[in-house]
Amino acid sequence: MIDINFELPVSKLKEALKNVHPSDIAVLFEDNAEYREKLIEAIGIRRFGEAFIYLNDDLQVRYYLKLEENKKRELLKHFELDDLKTFIELFRVSYHEEILRLLGKERREKVVKLLSYDGDTAGSISSPSFMYFDINSTVKEVTSKVIKESDDNDEIDVIFFHDDVRFVGGLRLQDLIIARESMALYDIVDENYPYAYADDLVASAVRKIRNYDVSVLPVIDDKKVLVGIITADDALDIMKEDHIDAVEGLVALHDHSDASSPLKRSMQRLPWLLMSVVLNIVIATFLTTFSDTIDSNVVLVMFQPMILGMAGNIGTQSIAVTILGLHHEKIKPMRHIRKELFIAIINSLISGLVGVLIVFGFLYLMPNDYADIDKVAMVVGISLVLSMFVSALVGVLLPFILRKLGADEKAASGPIISTVNDFAALGIYFLVATILLINM
Amino acid sequence: MIDINFELPVSKLKEALKNVHPSDIAVLFEDNAEYREKLIEAIGIRRFGEAFIYLNDDLQVRYYLKLEENKKRELLKHFELDDLKTFIELFRVSYHEEILRLLGKERREKVVKLLSYDGDTAGSISSPSFMYFDINSTVKEVTSKVIKESDDNDEIDVIFFHDDVRFVGGLRLQDLIIARESMALYDIVDENYPYAYADDLVASAVRKIRNYDVSVLPVIDDKKVLVGIITADDALDIMKEDHIDAVEGLVALHDHSDASSPLKRSMQRLPWLLMSVVLNIVIATFLTTFSDTIDSNVVLVMFQPMILGMAGNIGTQSIAVTILGLHHEKIKPMRHIRKELFIAIINSLISGLVGVLIVFGFLYLMPNDYADIDKVAMVVGISLVLSMFVSALVGVLLPFILRKLGADEKAASGPIISTVNDFAALGIYFLVATILLINM
Repeated sequence: MIDINFELPVSKLKEALKNVHPSDIAVLFEDNAEYREKLIEAIGIRRFGEAFIYLNDDLQVRYYLKLEENKKRELLKHFELDDLKTFIELFRVSYHEEILRLLGKERREKVVKLLSYDGDTAGSISSPSFMYFDINSTVKEVTSKVIKESDDNDEIDVIFFHDDVRFVGGLRLQDLIIARESMALYDIVDENYPYAYADDLVASAVRKIRNYDVSVLPVIDDKKVLVGIITADDALDIMKEDHIDAVEGLVALHDHSDASSPLKRSMQRLPWLLMSVVLNIVIATFLTTFSDTIDSNVVLVMFQPMILGMAGNIGTQSIAVTILGLHHEKIKPMRHIRKELFIAIINSLISGLVGVLIVFGFLYLMPNDYADIDKVAMVVGISLVLSMFVSALVGVLLPFILRKLGADEKAASGPIISTVNDFAALGIYFLVATILLINM
Repeated sequence: MIDINFELPVSKLKEALKNVHPSDIAVLFEDNAEYREKLIEAIGIRRFGEAFIYLNDDLQVRYYLKLEENKKRELLKHFELDDLKTFIELFRVSYHEEILRLLGKERREKVVKLLSYDGDTAGSISSPSFMYFDINSTVKEVTSKVIKESDDNDEIDVIFFHDDVRFVGGLRLQDLIIARESMALYDIVDENYPYAYADDLVASAVRKIRNYDVSVLPVIDDKKVLVGIITADDALDIMKEDHIDAVEGLVALHDHSDASSPLKRSMQRLPWLLMSVVLNIVIATFLTTFSDTIDSNVVLVMFQPMILGMAGNIGTQSIAVTILGLHHEKIKPMRHIRKELFIAIINSLISGLVGVLIVFGFLYLMPNDYADIDKVAMVVGISLVLSMFVSALVGVLLPFILRKLGADEKAASGPIISTVNDFAALGIYFLVATILLINM
């Protein structure tokens, strides 16, 4: 963390901030609300433009809206194109035009193109700053073009080539340097360089970067024309968001960000909680059908949390393992399901067996006036086995079913499913109890 | 996915596999057990060595152990140093020497160095293939050294410089290309290039790559000597593992990998499940102290799943949001806790209010012979508010407390805590019930 004394005069501040990275400038800007104007004065609008996209979303929007039009225009000028696109998407669609009209024609057209891609496609996250040359030129020509077009803002680790207009491959700068001027580009360009299509899913593009160990992945359209690149750094940001999404999905959160107001975040989490209340009333209704069994065997109530908890635990394990598999690897459905169900059977059986022994021991040792403690222990054990297995079965199959239906497999997690599992577990518990304790 | 007809003669197979990426070779090797020898014959040991590290861990170990010594030696020769280190760590420590002695002296020393770093430090994941030059040389000298030392296997997007022996900065290859031969390196090398210390945490190194948007992060030792680099691609792999760890932590899994045997994985998940059984017996014991209240108000049982479920839901939300914050951002503890508790109060109150209304409506409409349905509804409502708030409080505070104690904050999730929350929720429920229904 950087410590800056903002009481210094601007000239000294300028010196102190000279080599601070944009992302650290952003932190300073966020943390020192009272010195924001002074900070901008010290670093200049250009560097502030570079730092701006590192600010939290809320602050970006609020700060931008307060600026006068010429300041807005000035600020936007210093955004890179992909950042500009991300920035515009922070605003409601009806305001986009308002921002776009402040851009120069060329930049506006490129951003409009980026905005036109679907949100979860490779095209939408690609950056249009890349070098793209004719493969029929010479090493010497390409080298001098690289030197001429190289700009401080762009990261160019790999340059790309087309034949006619179609993408043919990539060449690492490092290989261009060691190439002799007389070499034909066709001989050194890697024609098997991996690429993604603009409408491929983001996740699949990220997986390509990871699997093929490239630092830049080119994105081409359906005519095989290069339209953008995704760098490994971009992929890191995407993975971070993705990771957060997955964990939030598991617990039915929608916005973990510290930036939005607590009240707003509270309202985002509430629907799920309330839905869960309603679902639990369905469970209560269902339980009333067993009121005779419960009335005459109140001891069953003691072990209700155990049945619910164990079914819940094994269920979330199965869901998580299945979602992780679907997300990060190409798992083979039948093999995965078979293996997971095998694990579920083993673990349910062992837990049930331990349950019987421990419940019997507990009832035997505790002073109480319940008869049939052996039968109660059996009820708990059998219910554990069955409810755990059912819960695991749901957890393993549901993500696949959702994916098959075209839905997001992550919807399999969350309070709704856990309530459904509660429902099944209690149904099994009291059904087994009714059969063993009442009818026998 | 690549489709290869393995019935083809080796010469044709060689042609078909010519441009297949190592990671795809690995998939083919995994999926076509009966053609493994033929595949190796077609691609040669060198390319097999490159593909080997993409195989699943289990297969790497099993396959390696079956090889004769000279084949082992040959295979190891084609591993990159950081991969070699990862590979060796798949084996138990007592076997490491066995592998190390098959390496040439220079490679052995470098790998031993890598193995010496703690598992979660930047040093342990760094790769020792980098270019490191004296900053007092000329652009021309450096360029010719890059050309000479450049090797197909290394990714060199950034080269690094030392003055004497200490690290002074980095220079992107792209900037080297555009530099005029007469320029002093001191003027073009970025002396603010971000770096990590070898004993920094992996997570902090990854965050640097992400925040500073660099494709390579140099790792230096405490004498400021460059000892390795971490690329953005490496960071992607680490983030993937990290992501999996976090989700597994949330559900107390330890190995989601498809690769180990189901029985082994079953045994890894079992301890938590069994611990949960035991903890639930503690809950049962606790519940017996309320047996009078339960006996005379069996209707309470109907709403027990609601209390448990709601406290559980809000608790996992709080834990997840706190762990995500601690992991991905530098959250300010007091601010985060204050905000989260505000959200918890709002959501508990609203859920409790809805609970009262819905339970009252339910009891009013359902045919039953319970008296005091207004009091029962109050008990459920008050218990919801209190138990949800307590559960959220634990979820927000525990990760901070664990971190303060030097433990992993992810331990806050998992079955133990959910059982503790169950315990608190039921205690509150039956205590409130005893006060309102029995003593009043």
